[in-house]
Parts: sequence; structure tokens; C-alpha cells
Amino acid sequence: MPIDEVAESLTVTPRDTLRRKRERGSYDREVINSVLDEALVCHVGFGAEHGPVVLPMTYARVDDDVYVHGAAGNDMLRHLASGIDVCVTVTLLDGLVFARSAFHHSMNYRCVVLFGRAERVTDLDEMSTMVAALLDHLAPGRSADARPPTPEELRATLILRLPIHEGSAKVRTGGPIDDEEDLGLPIWAGVLPTALVAGSPVSHEGTGGPLSVPAYVSERVLPT
Amino acid sequence: MPIDEVAESLTVTPRDTLRRKRERGSYDREVINSVLDEALVCHVGFGAEHGPVVLPMTYARVDDDVYVHGAAGNDMLRHLASGIDVCVTVTLLDGLVFARSAFHHSMNYRCVVLFGRAERVTDLDEMSTMVAALLDHLAPGRSADARPPTPEELRATLILRLPIHEGSAKVRTGGPIDDEEDLGLPIWAGVLPTALVAGSPVSHEGTGGPLSVPAYVSERVLPT
Repeated sequence: MPIDEVAESLTVTPRDTLRRKRERGSYDREVINSVLDEALVCHVGFGAEHGPVVLPMTYARVDDDVYVHGAAGNDMLRHLASGIDVCVTVTLLDGLVFARSAFHHSMNYRCVVLFGRAERVTDLDEMSTMVAALLDHLAPGRSADARPPTPEELRATLILRLPIHEGSAKVRTGGPIDDEEDLGLPIWAGVLPTALVAGSPVSHEGTGGPLSVPAYVSERVLPT
Repeated sequence: MPIDEVAESLTVTPRDTLRRKRERGSYDREVINSVLDEALVCHVGFGAEHGPVVLPMTYARVDDDVYVHGAAGNDMLRHLASGIDVCVTVTLLDGLVFARSAFHHSMNYRCVVLFGRAERVTDLDEMSTMVAALLDHLAPGRSADARPPTPEELRATLILRLPIHEGSAKVRTGGPIDDEEDLGLPIWAGVLPTALVAGSPVSHEGTGGPLSVPAYVSERVLPT
């Protein structure tokens, strides 16, 4: 995955300059968007009073922004909304890599790391757009079915927007990379692919039956 | 999941005191260990020169410690080894929760957040134990088959130990929690379970055939 600095790339700054395994890195916006659109959970990191904190959150991408949200009273989100630096990381695990030597075991993955400062969204239209994007991120089409948020519900929600501006993607694919002299060892080596998959939907009481499971849920294919 | 402060619990400090959704939280070591043992990737957060950074890493738990590792020349690991505060977060996504109202959509998950300072491991025996634990975390039994690390390989590796001392687990299970007045809406609601699963192993060239895929790989069941 070559480092690609064309127009559709992110800004290269001291903190997003790839250091280790640069050949696995990319600033390409298409690569970054595809990871953001496939994964379902991000890890949000920031400096709190007592040190760094990393918390998992749902998120949605809309064009060149990533949105996270939570309750309006959420201390962490309020702290983030104050304009502190934040790092948002999204990781997809694609496989376990077994080398002949312990030393060269690895994992296949796709990862996006974004840096910046988040801003609170207060415009009700943008909030509604974000909520729809979040639902459609869970299952494309869901936002057309669910009861939309009321203005009161939106006001009880704190939504943050982080521009996809500074950051990078890192991708490892392929098999193990053993040392030449280990290749003849009688030890199996290879990759065990992994993917997040969906099971069978469990209908909530009162739904199912005539309220049958929508196709966007029952046929939800988590990309692999 | 009640908050449980018996002897087998972690220390409750200002930074690991559960704030939001406390009923989902736990300081119980068994809950924490089970999440750490099931997941394969952690997200490590720390303050860097230019702000917070969150990076995915492999890890292994040995008793009451979590270990991460990388190349001895890895700037980030060297920075972490200098004794700065770190947050290590591990998240398992168990399901997408579809409520009737957009507002109450959610996810089922199990998450562990650990705080502390990591220490560099220099004892070769402890390093070997950690490497074996890491391999057996990928697939129990692997460490008995792989070529063990040489002292040179161990010296080229930077291993960090973080005690499982301060932190907490948070778990959401079950169906959507809609507002009473939305329960009659003709909208399907329920949970789409998700799990990380293993596909078919891909043998590296020169292995497979007589070097058949070991059972600990071909029968690797990622817990659900």
C-alpha cells in the first residue's frame, strides 16, 4: 500500500507522519473512507484530568466528517466539545498470521487513525442527517423505517463532528514473512482469516411475525 | 452487571470510577479477564508531543498483567516505556440493537478500560513467557510448535507490562429499550448479533500437505 499524496489525500503533519512500517501506510481518502464505512466501532482517545482515556463509541461518516454522539450530559463528550485534541482510531481485524518463527507472528488488519479537534453540532438539520447516517451505518435503509428523533431528543443528544483532515490508514495483508533460514522448518505457517459476521436477528417482543425482519437486517452482510 | 467490589476487584480511583450507565459497569476481575482473553486487539492511548494518540496493538494477558510488544526501535513503545500514563481499551462488539425510535438504537458490547503506567520487561524468561502467551492468545497451543525466539530476537523486541490494577469493564446485553409510547409502532425492533469468526486457514507456500494445518488453527473457535 504505497503512500499516496494526490489531491484526495489527507494533510501530512508531524503527528500523522507514518513512522513504523511506512510501506503499510496510506493517506489516501478512498482507503480511509472504506475502512471507516466498514467498521462499526471507533476508539476515541483524549487527555483527561487524570491522564489519557480511550473509549469505544459508535460513529458515522458523512462526506469528509466523522460524527460521534452521546447523551448531552455526558462529561466526556462535553470535555471533547471544549475543543481539546482528540484521536479517533478505527481497526478491522482481517486475519491471524502464523509464521514459522514466534518472532514473525502478526495480524492482518486495516486501521485508520484520525487527529483533530471535534466541534459540537447544534444545527438541527445537521443533527438529523447525522442520526440518519448513524442508523444507516448499522444497516443501510434503517433510517427510513425508525421513528425519527424529535427536537427534544436531538436536544438531549450531544453530537460531535471531526473533520477527516489529518490522519492516515495502515493496512497489512498477505502471509507470514519468515526469515529465509526458517522456511524449511517443518512448522505449518499461514493465515487464519477473521471477520465480523452477523448472526440471526432476534426480534424484540411485539415485533416479528407481521412485523417481519426487514431485509436490510436479515440480509445484512458485514463486508469481509 | 452489578458493580462488585470484592477482593477480586480492581481498585476504584477517580479515573476509573464509572460515570455513565453505571449499571453496565464492573470492577470484577473475572469479567475483565474474560474480555481480555477473548479479544485479539487492544487500543493503546497515550499523550504524545502533538496530542493524544490511539493505536491498535496485539496483546496477551498473563495472570494479572497485560503485555504489548513491538520492535525495540519503535518510538511509541519507547515513549510508553518511559513511564507515562497509558490507557488500554479492549472492545468486543456483540450485536447491533435496533430500537423503534432512532434515539434508542444501540450496540451490545463488552469493553475493558485499563489505566496505569507500563514498564519495560528486560528479563529474558519473562520475555519468553510473554511471547508464548501472545502466540497462545492467537491460537492456544501455537507456542509449542513455533520456533521460539532467539536471545537476539528478544533483544530486538520491546515488551511492556501493564498491571491489571486500575480500570473497569462495561457490558451491554439484551434488546432495545424503547420508550413506552413507541412500543406499539409498526416498526421492527430487535438485535442483530455480531461476532468475530474465523474463516478457512490459508497455508503458506511450502507448508500444508504433509505439514497439515494444526487442529488449534483449523478448529480455532473464536468465542462468541
